[in-house]
Amino acid sequence: MKSKKSFLPLSGREFPRFSAIKTFFRLPQAQVSENFDVALMGIPFDGGTSYRPGARFAPSQVREASSLGRSFHLEQNISIFEKFSCADIGDCSVVPIDLAKSYQKIEKTAGQVLETKKKLFSCGGDHSITLPLLRAFKKKYKKPLRLIHFDAHLDTYPAAWDCEYHHGAFARHAIDEGLIDSKSSLQIGIRGPLAAASDLSFSKKHQLPFWSVHDLRSKNLKDLLKKLKWDDRPTYITFDVDCLDPAFAPGTGTPVVGGLTTYETQRILQTLPIKNLVGGDVVEVCPAYDVSQITSLAAVDVLFQMLCRLD
Amino acid sequence: MKSKKSFLPLSGREFPRFSAIKTFFRLPQAQVSENFDVALMGIPFDGGTSYRPGARFAPSQVREASSLGRSFHLEQNISIFEKFSCADIGDCSVVPIDLAKSYQKIEKTAGQVLETKKKLFSCGGDHSITLPLLRAFKKKYKKPLRLIHFDAHLDTYPAAWDCEYHHGAFARHAIDEGLIDSKSSLQIGIRGPLAAASDLSFSKKHQLPFWSVHDLRSKNLKDLLKKLKWDDRPTYITFDVDCLDPAFAPGTGTPVVGGLTTYETQRILQTLPIKNLVGGDVVEVCPAYDVSQITSLAAVDVLFQMLCRLD
Amino acid sequence: MKSKKSFLPLSGREFPRFSAIKTFFRLPQAQVSENFDVALMGIPFDGGTSYRPGARFAPSQVREASSLGRSFHLEQNISIFEKFSCADIGDCSVVPIDLAKSYQKIEKTAGQVLETKKKLFSCGGDHSITLPLLRAFKKKYKKPLRLIHFDAHLDTYPAAWDCEYHHGAFARHAIDEGLIDSKSSLQIGIRGPLAAASDLSFSKKHQLPFWSVHDLRSKNLKDLLKKLKWDDRPTYITFDVDCLDPAFAPGTGTPVVGGLTTYETQRILQTLPIKNLVGGDVVEVCPAYDVSQITSLAAVDVLFQMLCRLD
Amino acid sequence: MKSKKSFLPLSGREFPRFSAIKTFFRLPQAQVSENFDVALMGIPFDGGTSYRPGARFAPSQVREASSLGRSFHLEQNISIFEKFSCADIGDCSVVPIDLAKSYQKIEKTAGQVLETKKKLFSCGGDHSITLPLLRAFKKKYKKPLRLIHFDAHLDTYPAAWDCEYHHGAFARHAIDEGLIDSKSSLQIGIRGPLAAASDLSFSKKHQLPFWSVHDLRSKNLKDLLKKLKWDDRPTYITFDVDCLDPAFAPGTGTPVVGGLTTYETQRILQTLPIKNLVGGDVVEVCPAYDVSQITSLAAVDVLFQMLCRLD
Amino acid sequence: MKSKKSFLPLSGREFPRFSAIKTFFRLPQAQVSENFDVALMGIPFDGGTSYRPGARFAPSQVREASSLGRSFHLEQNISIFEKFSCADIGDCSVVPIDLAKSYQKIEKTAGQVLETKKKLFSCGGDHSITLPLLRAFKKKYKKPLRLIHFDAHLDTYPAAWDCEYHHGAFARHAIDEGLIDSKSSLQIGIRGPLAAASDLSFSKKHQLPFWSVHDLRSKNLKDLLKKLKWDDRPTYITFDVDCLDPAFAPGTGTPVVGGLTTYETQRILQTLPIKNLVGGDVVEVCPAYDVSQITSLAAVDVLFQMLCRLD
Amino acid sequence: MKSKKSFLPLSGREFPRFSAIKTFFRLPQAQVSENFDVALMGIPFDGGTSYRPGARFAPSQVREASSLGRSFHLEQNISIFEKFSCADIGDCSVVPIDLAKSYQKIEKTAGQVLETKKKLFSCGGDHSITLPLLRAFKKKYKKPLRLIHFDAHLDTYPAAWDCEYHHGAFARHAIDEGLIDSKSSLQIGIRGPLAAASDLSFSKKHQLPFWSVHDLRSKNLKDLLKKLKWDDRPTYITFDVDCLDPAFAPGTGTPVVGGLTTYETQRILQTLPIKNLVGGDVVEVCPAYDVSQITSLAAVDVLFQMLCRLD
Repeated sequence: MKSKKSFLPLSGREFPRFSAIKTFFRLPQAQVSENFDVALMGIPFDGGTSYRPGARFAPSQVREASSLGRSFHLEQNISIFEKFSCADIGDCSVVPIDLAKSYQKIEKTAGQVLETKKKLFSCGGDHSITLPLLRAFKKKYKKPLRLIHFDAHLDTYPAAWDCEYHHGAFARHAIDEGLIDSKSSLQIGIRGPLAAASDLSFSKKHQLPFWSVHDLRSKNLKDLLKKLKWDDRPTYITFDVDCLDPAFAPGTGTPVVGGLTTYETQRILQTLPIKNLVGGDVVEVCPAYDVSQITSLAAVDVLFQMLCRLD
Repeated sequence: MKSKKSFLPLSGREFPRFSAIKTFFRLPQAQVSENFDVALMGIPFDGGTSYRPGARFAPSQVREASSLGRSFHLEQNISIFEKFSCADIGDCSVVPIDLAKSYQKIEKTAGQVLETKKKLFSCGGDHSITLPLLRAFKKKYKKPLRLIHFDAHLDTYPAAWDCEYHHGAFARHAIDEGLIDSKSSLQIGIRGPLAAASDLSFSKKHQLPFWSVHDLRSKNLKDLLKKLKWDDRPTYITFDVDCLDPAFAPGTGTPVVGGLTTYETQRILQTLPIKNLVGGDVVEVCPAYDVSQITSLAAVDVLFQMLCRLD
Repeated sequence: MKSKKSFLPLSGREFPRFSAIKTFFRLPQAQVSENFDVALMGIPFDGGTSYRPGARFAPSQVREASSLGRSFHLEQNISIFEKFSCADIGDCSVVPIDLAKSYQKIEKTAGQVLETKKKLFSCGGDHSITLPLLRAFKKKYKKPLRLIHFDAHLDTYPAAWDCEYHHGAFARHAIDEGLIDSKSSLQIGIRGPLAAASDLSFSKKHQLPFWSVHDLRSKNLKDLLKKLKWDDRPTYITFDVDCLDPAFAPGTGTPVVGGLTTYETQRILQTLPIKNLVGGDVVEVCPAYDVSQITSLAAVDVLFQMLCRLD
Repeated sequence: MKSKKSFLPLSGREFPRFSAIKTFFRLPQAQVSENFDVALMGIPFDGGTSYRPGARFAPSQVREASSLGRSFHLEQNISIFEKFSCADIGDCSVVPIDLAKSYQKIEKTAGQVLETKKKLFSCGGDHSITLPLLRAFKKKYKKPLRLIHFDAHLDTYPAAWDCEYHHGAFARHAIDEGLIDSKSSLQIGIRGPLAAASDLSFSKKHQLPFWSVHDLRSKNLKDLLKKLKWDDRPTYITFDVDCLDPAFAPGTGTPVVGGLTTYETQRILQTLPIKNLVGGDVVEVCPAYDVSQITSLAAVDVLFQMLCRLD
Repeated sequence: MKSKKSFLPLSGREFPRFSAIKTFFRLPQAQVSENFDVALMGIPFDGGTSYRPGARFAPSQVREASSLGRSFHLEQNISIFEKFSCADIGDCSVVPIDLAKSYQKIEKTAGQVLETKKKLFSCGGDHSITLPLLRAFKKKYKKPLRLIHFDAHLDTYPAAWDCEYHHGAFARHAIDEGLIDSKSSLQIGIRGPLAAASDLSFSKKHQLPFWSVHDLRSKNLKDLLKKLKWDDRPTYITFDVDCLDPAFAPGTGTPVVGGLTTYETQRILQTLPIKNLVGGDVVEVCPAYDVSQITSLAAVDVLFQMLCRLD
Repeated sequence: MKSKKSFLPLSGREFPRFSAIKTFFRLPQAQVSENFDVALMGIPFDGGTSYRPGARFAPSQVREASSLGRSFHLEQNISIFEKFSCADIGDCSVVPIDLAKSYQKIEKTAGQVLETKKKLFSCGGDHSITLPLLRAFKKKYKKPLRLIHFDAHLDTYPAAWDCEYHHGAFARHAIDEGLIDSKSSLQIGIRGPLAAASDLSFSKKHQLPFWSVHDLRSKNLKDLLKKLKWDDRPTYITFDVDCLDPAFAPGTGTPVVGGLTTYETQRILQTLPIKNLVGGDVVEVCPAYDVSQITSLAAVDVLFQMLCRLD
């Protein structure tokens, strides 16, 4: 009987944290068909990358770094892996050299998870993976989602080299395809330089709000939060680690200086008025450029903070 | 006659800082029996580590990085190596594969230094070394000390793998053995996640106060300081570099994101109402995970800031 | 006809940013004699270094990192490479093992650029290169310049090893030679420790003001700015990347913990009441100690922020 | 029914090699009680290390690197994972800070595997893990084994720091305890310098032969092989990666220059007249000192070469 | 008049080798239409990679490393850049996320170079780039070429993930498309393990000969050379740096231990009876995994050795 | 009485090798005036470097790596530190930014050592330091020495950038100044490419013989040795680590692929008919480019092999 299976992480006080086959947070591996609440999945696809590739190795490295993960949130006072049964469902199958095929596989696999009424949190991969994920979520929830989007970049950029789909265009497609509601969404961590002033046109046209790093540091977070009047539509969080400063996340594909600290993103994730969180992802961890796993550790923390916002 | 010996660091304007056999701050080497005020000692033991080992190489790397160290404190306006005669007494003998034997050696060596009425500052090693050091200090000063404890972790954790003594349990033993006075002590830089809510029980039971990173950033340091009403009992500072964010101290054994900056720890070290400082240590520098020596440089600064708080 | 040449950077949406022969900001290479506004030049000299050498490789690495550079400043709302025609004029010829010969070559080359009425921004090299640059600027502008000097160090230090000229003495010589007006100048990012209290004497004698890191964090930037009553004399900015904390700039020769963040230097560069900016440099990037190019990326940003302050 | 389970590695042509939860050679995980031929196990213990620790992370890294592993041996013309059913049984439980407890756990776990009549190949850990493994093998096979021992060091060294058991003493204990037959054994890759001439006494006394690097390069391998007249006693291979030159295996704890190449160890492993191979291990991979996984890749190859020598 | 342009590399005795904008061998940049003998081109495409991506950064890194390149071949006694006029024509335009588009661009660009009767040597990029290059050469020379193919892998593998074209299939396509004459070709450096015995079927069917590492080390090179009876058809050399051992080329995408040394590949390149060399490439340099540029330096040497075989 | 002082290295079996203040081979520090046989000295000068600087940090890193050094030579059967009393005399004073001043200091310091009838072995520094050393040796021994010169480069190159003295010209000056006897000397490890055929003229003119890597590998070492008919003039060995292949010595300033292995240099150092060895040096270790200390470990071995050739 599946319900008897324990979904608690392997304890570090019994089995040292450097030991054992690596899963997210030392959680058990499970089949999608098993009975648990939250699925953690790797999506090792980086075929939409415009600069440094390598995010395909992120699921493996983030699993490794998550050995240091723990259950109890000091500020929120919850023990997340006791509150929800969570499991590692392994990696989504992808085709490293074909974005279109990979999109189909990601959308299909995510759809299968969502059909079982689980929440789904993914570890990319480059940011192009978020589009097929959102397609699956839209199909499941039948309405445009709220997207909480942490990023240094707007990701509403136009086609590049005659390619519509790439890791800097996912937000544009998500809006154009009606997967997210732009006015209910929010971009966090945006900063320049941009290629041109016209980069902002799409956001303006669709009334997609953003908090730049300068907004966050020159204004009061409480004041910024007051302006948000969010309904209870399903919320999805996508966290591109390049929203963090390269000092805090050197291991990423298109780093931009002048970014956020991990403490700031923790605070934002803890204080945003998120309701009805249905899933999320952390993307653009590029292990070949990481340093002593600090970017992977940040990604682990992001997954943990997200899970702690589940209702 | 020993008193003629100069205890000034080798000058970088005469001898380039990259040259010469490496001692802490380019200070002279000395025997414990010689006549000087402050002894700097390496304790290259990492046999109490639960995750990444390697702190055994810290004394060597910190000596190397301390070649960039200087004497004059800009804010406190003192020239520390002119104020006190300081010397490098080399490394404490340890047994890398036997914690109990190493504890005996550390306690004995520290006791020998303290018997000469010197102040003693050590460079670990993992955090398990602080327990035998505190045993020696307690024996010398004959009463429980105040412990100023910088750390991401509480270090009051229970036995692991049936082992009572490890680098995450030193503070628990120090309290249980009566080496420190928990109510007069303070933990700084604590942050989650924890293994479980019960991790906090020991601190609560013994009224051991802590300032979390969030406390330090959401409250005013002056306000926090006002609550401290400290007597003049002997004070000991232990600084685990993982109180710093991994961006500032990547070279450590159990990094936790969302940590302090070096500037913040400088300010705290400069403004805490420390009296009667008798010793200290900096621990958990793990050179194999360091980057361009930034963790070692932080450790050097910590030693410098500590010395500048000597009366 | 030269005016027909395009001085726009190669577009990343047409040609991927990892491709093409590397120039600063993917700008065209040009001869000094060509018709454009701003010259970007490498000065790969590190023969004045007292600790870690290697800044000779900075121009090459900063060119590489600047492939991620873009044109449009989000806060200042300008597209800098459309506003001014900019070009990469290659590297200044230097003699790696002879400081005096290198000084002559740098001064001469800079002079040739300035004679064409261009603005000149250089990428060092260690900080010793700023002295011959200032000599050329003084000769061109015929009066002492205002120096905006970002640095952890005062660089007014005395001779070392019987050598008058080294990377820690350029500011002293610049004042002694009348190249800059000390009272109209400003040092930013200074922090201790110093070798001795006497290190401050020169600054005091010449009334050279500085903002320490602690000044910047304990006081309000607006208040600090109010005290500046600057005339419109020609302004030159020199940016030693060690003004940044080692977390943000590990790749430098003489790192000092407790430094500025890239966000802070961006804000300062954007808000200082700079008029009549005639040139600048970014120095002390030491690629062999850099990590995933974060120091080079910071240097690229500094060059970008400087260019955006051109009238 | 267990026999239906496939024990073939996950195919790289169906699932990219960078994807999936990491097991040795992408083999299935299995319980010891399941029905298969060869068990692969990690033993993440490095508490017997005298210099650089960190081999506790080797099982994780070697699993990761083994994603590039393949089945078919070009020279031996066998497809090993079709010939034998192999599985990853995870990591042996160890106590990082207690060698004696770890020895008990290793011996017990290995014994349980051997009781099921499986072959057992382990990935250490430091070389101290081989002693409890040999104890288990001796208990199972009821007679002293032949030890094929690849190493730069003799590992017959005396107690250090009053500790009998450490990673440089396992071979001495194995002989003293009658676990191996010294005359039927062979050490390969030995080279100087030694601490003293007396280091060789133990080998001489017990007639334990060795092939130094110089022997292997100045003599003909065929001639060396001719001298071996081995019976069919059970054979165990232990491979310390420091038998390889640091160029081929930088990621190890006590590197010695002048070592073997991976090609040479491949040839030796392929041509030694090994019969009745019952198990083996690869030890002293220290990932924190590795470079682009080349040491882990060498370890993967060693495991592969060993498996291909199974009868 | 173009013929006056000097095609000599910038001298290191006049301009230090660390200075100047980086081109291959410090050669002048030139347009394809200019009058010179040999074109060097970067092809920064890695979209055909099955494991570690990142070869897109190889042209930039190889240009940087080639600053140490020199003209005179000690054994062959020729000064190659005096013998032939060579130039860097920059990078071929590619689309990082679309293999088919990139193939078209590569074939077209190469065709344009060949039309001018120049020899063409390219720096990849992953090995998938060789197929469109061979298509262009076939079109130009109107008959199947001889392919000298250095590699650890056969690259005759079947489709993966339903994709016909990838970096491990170029040789299969080159034969199937009639671009090369398999019997006149040669693969060098091949070694196991393979996925299955069937991996060799294609080579056998097409009588494509190979020299494994073991062949090269167990047989005499002169004997191996005697077997080659080559006509004077146009010869093309493709050099995958993974033919080298990871010790000599850690910076590559799919490393295999037990490989060749740089000395061995130098000797082979110098002694193969190559006639009528018309072009070549060096591929699979992956800078993010390189170490102190040793892989890039090997690639530079390969380009140099190839050039020295031009008639 | 000084003669009572022990000159044995600190034992690793009593004091772990990672502990203690770092000296060469864990030998005692001593004043030149003390009574011992062989002085080991660091010369941290890299001001003569044409490409990658950083050898100034070599003495510190080689001391650190030499903690793994041992006394007994396996092939030569001697315990060197028992045979001769050796000590670390610290670093020679140098001026990092002034080659001429450094030359004076080096020559003077070396002269002082030689006056005490000690042998002197130095750890550079770049190769420019060998010239002032040879000047001191010539002055002491009053006749031209035999120079055994391991190097990838001839170091007889002409002035560069109008500078006569640099790290590639020391051998030319040594011959021109009559410090060495060119015909009795030998260069080992030389390989191309060269800048031009004329690079060989100086050697030819002065009949300075060399063994290229190809000579060493295509000919028999015994045959090469037979040609040497050396008298008993004082012999000096200078070992530039770039004679080694970059795989074996990545941490150097001007690496050249196709080099020697550490085993080969060990064999050469052990079999050359060296008599009357009076001193030596190992140079061009560049720690910032080293990997897990393998270059430093090679340098340690070179010093050890040299010492073992003392009569």
